[in-house]
Amino acid sequence: MTAAQLDATFAALADPTRRAILARLASGEASVNELAEPFAMTQPAISKHLKVLERAGLVTRGRDAQRRPRKLEAKPLAEATAWLEEYRKHWDLSFHRLDAVLEEMKRTRRKR
Amino acid sequence: MTAAQLDATFAALADPTRRAILARLASGEASVNELAEPFAMTQPAISKHLKVLERAGLVTRGRDAQRRPRKLEAKPLAEATAWLEEYRKHWDLSFHRLDAVLEEMKRTRRKR
Repeated sequence: MTAAQLDATFAALADPTRRAILARLASGEASVNELAEPFAMTQPAISKHLKVLERAGLVTRGRDAQRRPRKLEAKPLAEATAWLEEYRKHWDLSFHRLDAVLEEMKRTRRKR
Repeated sequence: MTAAQLDATFAALADPTRRAILARLASGEASVNELAEPFAMTQPAISKHLKVLERAGLVTRGRDAQRRPRKLEAKPLAEATAWLEEYRKHWDLSFHRLDAVLEEMKRTRRKR
């Protein structure tokens, strides 16, 4: 894992549309049209975000030449998570308090 | 947690100097001078990075008015980790394979 890969991964994650695209792809491959659907965005706007995700190596193209489905690549996300987890043990919050934050977030997310 | 907070957190993490500053602060408060020391960087350059970290809420100023030590704020980092972990279960890698990646990264890091 290089610093440049982490830079690209975190930069790609710093946008709500790109995070939503990754969240959608986490549940399976999707074509650009399928990805554009839930967003109030044109296909070119979505394609621009996809290009950022592809350049960062977070998204690749599936084999179907017609649909050109996009696919999530887990490894860079795993490496970004690992970077954060490496420092978790030093964070100001005790594990116990961090667990409480995570639990609270999960509850809030479920309600949405 | 708002989308804007996650945007700011991930954008702040997308730079190797800022990640190094956070890593340093994970082991305790430090003044700007102390933070600048390990980097081949001027104090103003470090201050610029600190401003990004402060605006994102990842770093705050400690109470000592003379030293103005900088302090890591864990909550936004915990929230960014939680976002990534929410999708981990869907990632292409099985938990087993992800664990292998994390283990490998830890070993590599220990060797450095």
